[in-house]
Amino acid sequence: MPRYALIIEYEGSQFIGWQRQANGNSVQGTLEKALRQLDPDASDVTAAGRTDSGVHAYGQVVHCDVRRDWDAGRLCDALNAHLRSARVSVLRAASVDSGFSARFSAVRRVYLYRIIMRRAPLAHAPGLAWRVAVNLDSTAMQRASAHLIGTHDFTTFCATHCQAESPIKTLDRLTIQEIPVLYGRELHIRAEARSFLHRQIRSIVGSLERVGAGAMSADQLRDALHACDRSTCGPVAPATGLYLERVDYDPDPFRRT
Amino acid sequence: MPRYALIIEYEGSQFIGWQRQANGNSVQGTLEKALRQLDPDASDVTAAGRTDSGVHAYGQVVHCDVRRDWDAGRLCDALNAHLRSARVSVLRAASVDSGFSARFSAVRRVYLYRIIMRRAPLAHAPGLAWRVAVNLDSTAMQRASAHLIGTHDFTTFCATHCQAESPIKTLDRLTIQEIPVLYGRELHIRAEARSFLHRQIRSIVGSLERVGAGAMSADQLRDALHACDRSTCGPVAPATGLYLERVDYDPDPFRRT
Repeated sequence: MPRYALIIEYEGSQFIGWQRQANGNSVQGTLEKALRQLDPDASDVTAAGRTDSGVHAYGQVVHCDVRRDWDAGRLCDALNAHLRSARVSVLRAASVDSGFSARFSAVRRVYLYRIIMRRAPLAHAPGLAWRVAVNLDSTAMQRASAHLIGTHDFTTFCATHCQAESPIKTLDRLTIQEIPVLYGRELHIRAEARSFLHRQIRSIVGSLERVGAGAMSADQLRDALHACDRSTCGPVAPATGLYLERVDYDPDPFRRT
Repeated sequence: MPRYALIIEYEGSQFIGWQRQANGNSVQGTLEKALRQLDPDASDVTAAGRTDSGVHAYGQVVHCDVRRDWDAGRLCDALNAHLRSARVSVLRAASVDSGFSARFSAVRRVYLYRIIMRRAPLAHAPGLAWRVAVNLDSTAMQRASAHLIGTHDFTTFCATHCQAESPIKTLDRLTIQEIPVLYGRELHIRAEARSFLHRQIRSIVGSLERVGAGAMSADQLRDALHACDRSTCGPVAPATGLYLERVDYDPDPFRRT
């Protein structure tokens, strides 16, 4: 059966997470339901990142098999027609060969974490960022983050029920950027790696927030990493601020569309 | 009674507009209800811009009179506590003298209009921008917009039920900016003037969109302006894309806080 890769966007607060479950609306279940309205024989949908409940996506990548060939643009439009009002949207589609896997072929995953610093609640984006009432020191956060870049045992920053074969991961980039906003301040924390442990980014962001608030030093962050002990990690940052922003493949299947 | 100016933010899709009405949730009514939980004798609230249903604000300014003196920060926090879950948020408060009017003392109003160009629906911001499926030519829009800057009779771009004393207004700035986004393109159209006619910005944006789509030339836009005839205007752009971004005063009452 022909295989297609899709780039999709979703608002995490509307779903119990990526993965199909017996109860509740999952992104996977919503997408598979729309797909089967086009093609009852369509396969399940496999994602590059199985995001947790509340986590958003700007550029999740998935693949699925369907019975007939589709023009990429028509497949997007047809799926979006069946996803109307679901807060999931198909941005791109591309025909790929049967060896392509959204999950296993990915060479890089980029996650964005949004922190908005201000006292007042967010009228426009209550579930789209983590609001922090204190003024974080982004220079201290940037300096501390350098300790995490590279290949490390990330046990400290991994959920206790993480199913990864190994806690050793290579974090290629971790950047902290100040975004100009009218009132308050916004930070964008971006993490890039081939793959991540479960809750790794939210664990890292939770500890970096403690560094920015002056409650943890850069040395303490480094020591926590080296301790390989979950109890040395700061609190886990809420899901609301996290976005799967981009997934890269080589070659890029979407360059053709 | 002491007078306070407030900067407020709201999501327009949750309201029937700024103005209190017999039926439906207005921003004014919601704010006055919260204010009177703090002070039953508080005055009505007057806004710099009486935004229509669906129009958002990042920086609306209002004033009100209350019985006792408040610390500005405490007034924000107390109001926000009573506005919980209302999608209105108080960003700043400042004590002002009794001659200050949020409406009549304003020297400049800045509106932002967001257009997102892409075929796929907006999963994150369905009511927060105008989605346009065609690729607009922003250079042509920028060139055409130059005809509108300055002092003109804006009858063409004014709602038929507009209550302004005169259709002559001075448009100080009208800019069109490309905003980098991952998928699709985003345009920010900003309009600055001391005051605007009713629906003036949405009427201008609607015509500029026609220019960007190649359906109207810059000369036709200029001729439409000079015709002073509502029927020569393009369609009015939807409220979802419009934000009251900032209101300026001289002196700025918020510099003190």
